[in-house]
Amino acid sequence: MPASVLRETQAAIDEVPGLGLSVLGVSHRSKWFRDVVAEAEEHFRALLGLPPEYHVLFLQGGSTLQFSQVPLTLLKPPPNEAEYLHTGYWSGKSLPEAKAVGPIKTLWSGQAEGFRRLPTDAELATSAGASYFHYISNETVEGLQFHRIPGRDDVLRICDMSSDFLSKPLDATRFAVIYAHAQKNLGPSGVTVVIVRDDIVKRVPPGLPSMMDYRCHAEAHSIYNTPPVFAIYVTMLIARWLRRDVGGLAAMEKINATKAATLYAAVDGSGEFYRGRAAVADRSLMNVVFNLPTAELEKRFTSEAEAAGFYGLDGHRSLGGVRASIYNAVTQSSVEALIGFMRDFQQRAG
Amino acid sequence: MPASVLRETQAAIDEVPGLGLSVLGVSHRSKWFRDVVAEAEEHFRALLGLPPEYHVLFLQGGSTLQFSQVPLTLLKPPPNEAEYLHTGYWSGKSLPEAKAVGPIKTLWSGQAEGFRRLPTDAELATSAGASYFHYISNETVEGLQFHRIPGRDDVLRICDMSSDFLSKPLDATRFAVIYAHAQKNLGPSGVTVVIVRDDIVKRVPPGLPSMMDYRCHAEAHSIYNTPPVFAIYVTMLIARWLRRDVGGLAAMEKINATKAATLYAAVDGSGEFYRGRAAVADRSLMNVVFNLPTAELEKRFTSEAEAAGFYGLDGHRSLGGVRASIYNAVTQSSVEALIGFMRDFQQRAG
Repeated sequence: MPASVLRETQAAIDEVPGLGLSVLGVSHRSKWFRDVVAEAEEHFRALLGLPPEYHVLFLQGGSTLQFSQVPLTLLKPPPNEAEYLHTGYWSGKSLPEAKAVGPIKTLWSGQAEGFRRLPTDAELATSAGASYFHYISNETVEGLQFHRIPGRDDVLRICDMSSDFLSKPLDATRFAVIYAHAQKNLGPSGVTVVIVRDDIVKRVPPGLPSMMDYRCHAEAHSIYNTPPVFAIYVTMLIARWLRRDVGGLAAMEKINATKAATLYAAVDGSGEFYRGRAAVADRSLMNVVFNLPTAELEKRFTSEAEAAGFYGLDGHRSLGGVRASIYNAVTQSSVEALIGFMRDFQQRAG
Repeated sequence: MPASVLRETQAAIDEVPGLGLSVLGVSHRSKWFRDVVAEAEEHFRALLGLPPEYHVLFLQGGSTLQFSQVPLTLLKPPPNEAEYLHTGYWSGKSLPEAKAVGPIKTLWSGQAEGFRRLPTDAELATSAGASYFHYISNETVEGLQFHRIPGRDDVLRICDMSSDFLSKPLDATRFAVIYAHAQKNLGPSGVTVVIVRDDIVKRVPPGLPSMMDYRCHAEAHSIYNTPPVFAIYVTMLIARWLRRDVGGLAAMEKINATKAATLYAAVDGSGEFYRGRAAVADRSLMNVVFNLPTAELEKRFTSEAEAAGFYGLDGHRSLGGVRASIYNAVTQSSVEALIGFMRDFQQRAG
């Protein structure tokens, strides 16, 4: 989280400015909280240039619930297949949830190649008749990121952007549904932002659990049941910070691109001591995943890094290696400090 | 929230004691967070005297998701009817969610009587063949609370205890599933505690969305996807406070019973200026709902109360009137201060 937002959050635990109450004690039915939701929505609309036919919803259940909610909304009664990309660990999680609901087709899978690259457009035999097209824009585990928008504009495009949402400008109008859970660029875990076009909301079939019904949440302006007040409040503060302090998504992208370029340059310039995992063209600007010559060195690296104050560098448990996540709130100077540690470690251990 | 827990929470936004990191920056995959979940579970087990065949889960989606998850778990393939009680606004919300899944029977409804009382045991024609029996232990809107456990012990008993969980001792072994969302006695909104017996977990049918599958969450010890880290942490702090500082649920009940008795005595002793809404035998110890002679006086009362620092006294939008919620964290002295304001207001306006 950005330092200034962390300070505001801490103050709000004591008392929200001008309210006389702790953010943990305010009712979710209060005018104050309705205003928080409205302000958060307004910031998202402005940051993304969203036209009015899009709803901005603040939900619970993470991407995992969306993995089910999307097919429950769009695959009943059984229609044409939906098309899915299998580009890494997280998109792999989306497939069984959809298969349990209706017919889907895995259009491309990088599994056999160990998820080291993303598909080219030529490899995607998309069909105009698909129910929808689903992909994940950034695979955090493997450090892969789409630097284009795949799929076709004449098919509903649905994207899980949990790990790169708000990290760069985005033409949201090319999507029917975008969803992103927090704890990356958005705020504390427990809230999921869903950008959903009104024609999708209107297509929700009857009989879905209310919590999985976009229409319920759209009509209630995200206060259908007791929402995660604290998480939504902090998400609003972060969106405000992005807009006012950072200066918008183009400015954020510039910062993120510089951070990633600096870190990848250090990896690439290490004489094969640090080895980037992903194909260069598909490298993620959010998650820099690399290996060291041996698993033992990797373990020593992450443990010495933690002792030096660099937390969370372990690769995902499914993959091992090292992963530096450099989300929006990570500063260029933190990245440079990490590079300093990397050079120092290489001198000692290399 | 208890003042001491609020202070601990605020400190943890800066840095969790001994961890060197903000609670908003720790990974949900860290050993620290696994320990938080384990400690929270341990406190719940100790407070409730839970035997090992019960799981303690920390989920998302509130009671509303449980309204669907329970029938999706137990009403497929179509079996005998499940029996539901309709005792107020919130249990009314549970009925359509269940009806969308399978056959249910409303065993008793207080709607025609305006939800001013709860059913007697003689009024409940329960059946030994029911799939399960579902009720809500405390109706926050109407201020009604069961002071006994209704239903039969030879049928799966399922209860939404969102608004009186941990307010008093409880024989959890008489229940198959207990669920309670936070923002009442538990902590900040965004987490739902589910106590579920292992035979129910084993009965989860295949093909449910993972987020609605008790088995997924039980196997993952509540860290199946990204959980609401902050809300679970604060819930753990509150459970620790209840156990160590308050001295357990019997001590908590004593405090709560005194608070409620004092407040109801003030209502009853006001010469009909303040009029309790619920039947005396079914009065809630958590939500004291009362009326004033006119709706205008009620409006003036809640608005002057807010100016005097008593927030959230408006009755639910569906009902009007006044509602004083006196959950665990509200102190006897706060209740006495409110009574002072009530006497003062009556002198001025009565």
